[in-house]
Amino acid sequence: MNPKVNYGMVGGDIGAFIGNVHRKAISFDPRVRLAAGCFSASSENKNRETGEVLGLDPERVYKSYLEMAQKEAARPDGIDFVTIVTPNVTHYEIAKAFLENGIHVLCEKPLTFTVEQAEELKDLSEKRNLLFGVNYSYTGYVLAKVMREMVKEGKIGKVINVNAEYPQEWLLDDLHPVPGQELKLSVWRKDPAVAGISNCVGDIGSHIENFIYYVTGLKIRRLLAVTNHFGQPLDLNANILVEYDNGANGAYWCSQVAAGTLNGLAVRIYGDEGSLEWKQEDPDYVRYTPRGEAPRILTRGNSYLKEKAAAWSQMPTGHPEGLHVAFANIYKAFISAILASREGKNTDEFDFPRVTDGINGVKFIHAVVESAKNDAKWINLL
Amino acid sequence: MNPKVNYGMVGGDIGAFIGNVHRKAISFDPRVRLAAGCFSASSENKNRETGEVLGLDPERVYKSYLEMAQKEAARPDGIDFVTIVTPNVTHYEIAKAFLENGIHVLCEKPLTFTVEQAEELKDLSEKRNLLFGVNYSYTGYVLAKVMREMVKEGKIGKVINVNAEYPQEWLLDDLHPVPGQELKLSVWRKDPAVAGISNCVGDIGSHIENFIYYVTGLKIRRLLAVTNHFGQPLDLNANILVEYDNGANGAYWCSQVAAGTLNGLAVRIYGDEGSLEWKQEDPDYVRYTPRGEAPRILTRGNSYLKEKAAAWSQMPTGHPEGLHVAFANIYKAFISAILASREGKNTDEFDFPRVTDGINGVKFIHAVVESAKNDAKWINLL
Amino acid sequence: MNPKVNYGMVGGDIGAFIGNVHRKAISFDPRVRLAAGCFSASSENKNRETGEVLGLDPERVYKSYLEMAQKEAARPDGIDFVTIVTPNVTHYEIAKAFLENGIHVLCEKPLTFTVEQAEELKDLSEKRNLLFGVNYSYTGYVLAKVMREMVKEGKIGKVINVNAEYPQEWLLDDLHPVPGQELKLSVWRKDPAVAGISNCVGDIGSHIENFIYYVTGLKIRRLLAVTNHFGQPLDLNANILVEYDNGANGAYWCSQVAAGTLNGLAVRIYGDEGSLEWKQEDPDYVRYTPRGEAPRILTRGNSYLKEKAAAWSQMPTGHPEGLHVAFANIYKAFISAILASREGKNTDEFDFPRVTDGINGVKFIHAVVESAKNDAKWINLL
Amino acid sequence: MNPKVNYGMVGGDIGAFIGNVHRKAISFDPRVRLAAGCFSASSENKNRETGEVLGLDPERVYKSYLEMAQKEAARPDGIDFVTIVTPNVTHYEIAKAFLENGIHVLCEKPLTFTVEQAEELKDLSEKRNLLFGVNYSYTGYVLAKVMREMVKEGKIGKVINVNAEYPQEWLLDDLHPVPGQELKLSVWRKDPAVAGISNCVGDIGSHIENFIYYVTGLKIRRLLAVTNHFGQPLDLNANILVEYDNGANGAYWCSQVAAGTLNGLAVRIYGDEGSLEWKQEDPDYVRYTPRGEAPRILTRGNSYLKEKAAAWSQMPTGHPEGLHVAFANIYKAFISAILASREGKNTDEFDFPRVTDGINGVKFIHAVVESAKNDAKWINLL
Repeated sequence: MNPKVNYGMVGGDIGAFIGNVHRKAISFDPRVRLAAGCFSASSENKNRETGEVLGLDPERVYKSYLEMAQKEAARPDGIDFVTIVTPNVTHYEIAKAFLENGIHVLCEKPLTFTVEQAEELKDLSEKRNLLFGVNYSYTGYVLAKVMREMVKEGKIGKVINVNAEYPQEWLLDDLHPVPGQELKLSVWRKDPAVAGISNCVGDIGSHIENFIYYVTGLKIRRLLAVTNHFGQPLDLNANILVEYDNGANGAYWCSQVAAGTLNGLAVRIYGDEGSLEWKQEDPDYVRYTPRGEAPRILTRGNSYLKEKAAAWSQMPTGHPEGLHVAFANIYKAFISAILASREGKNTDEFDFPRVTDGINGVKFIHAVVESAKNDAKWINLL
Repeated sequence: MNPKVNYGMVGGDIGAFIGNVHRKAISFDPRVRLAAGCFSASSENKNRETGEVLGLDPERVYKSYLEMAQKEAARPDGIDFVTIVTPNVTHYEIAKAFLENGIHVLCEKPLTFTVEQAEELKDLSEKRNLLFGVNYSYTGYVLAKVMREMVKEGKIGKVINVNAEYPQEWLLDDLHPVPGQELKLSVWRKDPAVAGISNCVGDIGSHIENFIYYVTGLKIRRLLAVTNHFGQPLDLNANILVEYDNGANGAYWCSQVAAGTLNGLAVRIYGDEGSLEWKQEDPDYVRYTPRGEAPRILTRGNSYLKEKAAAWSQMPTGHPEGLHVAFANIYKAFISAILASREGKNTDEFDFPRVTDGINGVKFIHAVVESAKNDAKWINLL
Repeated sequence: MNPKVNYGMVGGDIGAFIGNVHRKAISFDPRVRLAAGCFSASSENKNRETGEVLGLDPERVYKSYLEMAQKEAARPDGIDFVTIVTPNVTHYEIAKAFLENGIHVLCEKPLTFTVEQAEELKDLSEKRNLLFGVNYSYTGYVLAKVMREMVKEGKIGKVINVNAEYPQEWLLDDLHPVPGQELKLSVWRKDPAVAGISNCVGDIGSHIENFIYYVTGLKIRRLLAVTNHFGQPLDLNANILVEYDNGANGAYWCSQVAAGTLNGLAVRIYGDEGSLEWKQEDPDYVRYTPRGEAPRILTRGNSYLKEKAAAWSQMPTGHPEGLHVAFANIYKAFISAILASREGKNTDEFDFPRVTDGINGVKFIHAVVESAKNDAKWINLL
Repeated sequence: MNPKVNYGMVGGDIGAFIGNVHRKAISFDPRVRLAAGCFSASSENKNRETGEVLGLDPERVYKSYLEMAQKEAARPDGIDFVTIVTPNVTHYEIAKAFLENGIHVLCEKPLTFTVEQAEELKDLSEKRNLLFGVNYSYTGYVLAKVMREMVKEGKIGKVINVNAEYPQEWLLDDLHPVPGQELKLSVWRKDPAVAGISNCVGDIGSHIENFIYYVTGLKIRRLLAVTNHFGQPLDLNANILVEYDNGANGAYWCSQVAAGTLNGLAVRIYGDEGSLEWKQEDPDYVRYTPRGEAPRILTRGNSYLKEKAAAWSQMPTGHPEGLHVAFANIYKAFISAILASREGKNTDEFDFPRVTDGINGVKFIHAVVESAKNDAKWINLL
């Protein structure tokens, strides 16, 4: 009768947009309930207020993530998993704390500062037999799953070129600082101490890397990159050439200073038997062109798509799903895996981004930064 | 600490898509909780199972809506409002039962079979001082609210022509019945006993009527219509000309047999100072052309839009919101009105579709059907 | 060695945009040469200057169309056909003069003021065994021909609904007259003495009528219409419902006051086996949806289109053709017909708009105006 | 009375599509007339037949370009300029022959095999005081000129990133050779002896290079590249990173094996004050986003665009122009320059691509090929 899975959140007070997105998406699943939180480390008021708004037991609104991990682990009705939506610098230590207390973890990306930290989290989760998800949210879109299935079925043949990008415009004003006035857009993502070695590539370039891997299964053998800082400590723009393990090439571009763009993740995957094009801002459609034929506009849920892929749809076709559904699909698979693991079942087939995806993301970010520092030298990843 | 508002649902068992959409959208609001339901009148199993999946107290999963209305009214922790997501024929009696038991109502559209029924519900809700919402869900989209605000501010001047449509394709196969095989798409919407006097106009034409009124404030003075049944009891396609109270004209088209369309609600509103274009399937954008200038593509949440309208946004701009958010915005306003009414405050300004919208919808449907029966005669609505 | 066909032009001095469009389009065809003209009746200077710029023999630059018709008819190297690009009021008498002098005619639309005039021209051309084309230029687009072929082949089955429109914005400023200042956009199209009984429907509504007939072969059995004059002598906006001879319905909308539109001819044709969508402003593509399948984006010249239709293409696919090519295709067919007629061959199969299309256009305009005057009464056309 | 400028053509028999495109585009200009030609070096029949169809004096249909250059130079009414539309390998010698005979030249791109050849042509044209145009046709589009003007006026500020591409699909079938059957798409562009050191980059990559330079004025300081041959002698796909002389970066991609693309030249230019986006396949529109504002869709000919740029428009706005107009604008400027040079006037300001553009193109192609051969090493261009 009661929810089967309880979860907690670290970060995401009610003033933070992303916390709400996560909670709304999780609430799509009737099997789960928010039971505990440490929503703000910096403001006790915000933390308490968030708990109140969300109707939490005040005892389970914690002042520190460590207290939360320990006390929840000790409760008979303690949380089954924690979702971590804090800035990059804290991911490692928070995730580690919950793993050490036997609690499944789903964490925002980029997973950690260093590859070693990410691999340590992987080892720890495996040793403790815990699930570890990483929130590469865009792979939750139904059409991402449809494309992945189509590539697997050979609909576009062997991939021969990839063109992918993720431009934004939200930091463009930073190129025009107003004297005597703090940068209104100055945020933690631009601070190396909080964000790590990269801003733009870390935040959005890594989505390109993960998304292309998710859809195609191709691994990046090596890459070279040019980044632009425009006078800031971290990168705001990057152009990257990649070589995949099948020998094909691709180009990735990410930017936070591209006027007229918002969250423009867009991928175009060309194979020797056809192509796929998809845009995050128009996520319910994919343009599929079989070799020698006219392009087709496929949408989720329709009879011409396979049942397996269409099963992720949470809204009748023709009604836009939006990013909440993509998040919800990530959580849906993660929660299903938790329930399966409870029964001792294998959880390998559940479709959510794993800690290995998190490791690959950190490797990708480091490779881009290293290449850019070395005048676009090739960096091997395999 | 607990949710401030409890709600119940009539209809919407877990096999019915629309019930899930409602519940997910409502769950965006942390102030509310599902507390009771009568999810299926035809199947006791489905009803019970739905309650279980949703974690309801079995005592509050009722076999009849009447029992539910009476027992919930009698509980100290009874539901504050009911949402009715059943087929058309049942709306009137269910809504009436809850109103008579002092419970606020939000009901699917079209509201009732007859104008008299709709007006009776209005009278009853006023007499009992209860809120009555009608689920014209598309008006919950942020851009619908932005357009409405822009029209009010005079951005497009006086409206001089409207072109609006809502084509679908889902009943096209019905034009090709396979002998000896039941129509796979045969559904209650096509049955006059359940749907009322109209299928297509009732289901989707009425959305056009409501949406244009919501955005422009224009009332239809009179209309004429041609409908097509293609051999079925009720309409599958309709072309309608309208004349508004400001003297302008418009054309509406709705269809369930238009190949290549899904939920193609699209409106174009032309004023003597500019125009607005919007599509339900791409809901985060509006094309706005001021007279003598280039078209602009506006999106929710951006600084060039007014704060008031942008406040409805539940996702950062550039990340698609989808229909769940539109539903959620309807419920958000409705729930806020309930909380305000609890404190004796005026609830007139809360932005959700009202019982008067429901009445106008029923009048519109009747006018279209009457005109079509009389060879496209003008029918007065004012 | 010399061009095989000589032509003359009435109207279209070098200051008039449309004259240049015609001449450039005609010059696509190496079989034809401009040999004579009466480019301006009002300005002797403009007339002479146009002849000079175009390199004409000054003797063949005439002060009146009548002189031109007579003298050219008397020359051994006289023009084979005349193209008439003058305002509406003059079409009838000019066309008549050339027909009476034994010269083939291609004339702008709307063909004449009255149906009787149009029919007289038809009779005259038949009696004299002369070709008579009418410049419904949009039917010259390759995709118009492709769609026509697809409909004939049954690709969309029986047509069940048509939605077509032609909005423009160029007269919107007229709704905002500046006191003491002549309307800058005051043009002959708005003057009943020059344009006839209609401005908007005559100029662009008639293109919808002809284009839909061209593509579908459907005849309008009856129609009803509402027009808007916004204080002017002639119509600036019209909404029209039609009923075709196969029983299907359609809605047409044309406007000259629709902010944000340019030459927005757009047609959507729905059949019981599929649909076609096409836009004049994006003329190289058609969206084709077979019933139950995903929409396809077809373009001219590609292997998946039939050879017959693709043969009209004058530019490799992927390079936009533009309206010059549509005009050129009309003239190409007309000139081919002239050459065939010279050899006594049948000319019925050459694909250009005929005088019967011109007659239908005038009938359509009159029906719309009559219906609008009679409160949207049905007007029979068959 | 007669045309003021006579021209000849080398290559472009009536079976070759591109010859017709050139001739039709040139015929837009009433000041010019085709007077001589050597249309096919391989087929005497095709050569003669082309002359006949085009109505040329048989004496001026030459068997060799050399004969043509010499004899035309000797005639009092000899051609003023020649347009060369032959395969790459012949450009240098043909252009040289006409220059040496005192005839202006407009030549297809890529201009020559080697940089030295291109520079020799430049020197020769300067020594002889002859005009030398290179057919980078896409810069003839009105919106290319509008964008160039906007960049000059500072509308997008300092350029900070460029993303440009030119994908095609026409050689994709070559990746699937059918045993025992000649490649149907085997063409001279793939043959090093005729095309030079590059196929894809030479043919279409060079258009990206020229177009971006035309619009932005930015010179490429250095570049690195990866190309893909897919088993063929020359490249079919290339990804290129560039660094401009202002320090900004960009990425170029060209391909002939990208399913679902036709002539997909598309450029996106991001500045610190705004951005411009344009697509060759939709050439009448540019998307312009000023920093902090909504994107606008600008089209040629409208009042909000500058008169200077709009002056190139050859069709009222809203009617598509197509590639013929782009070609026509190149020729229009070239012919105007010829007429100006006749009067001894300065010809520097006439807006057509010059021999220096041709040199830059050859340098670009060589740099890409060299970088690709050296594992994506940076190659300096300045």
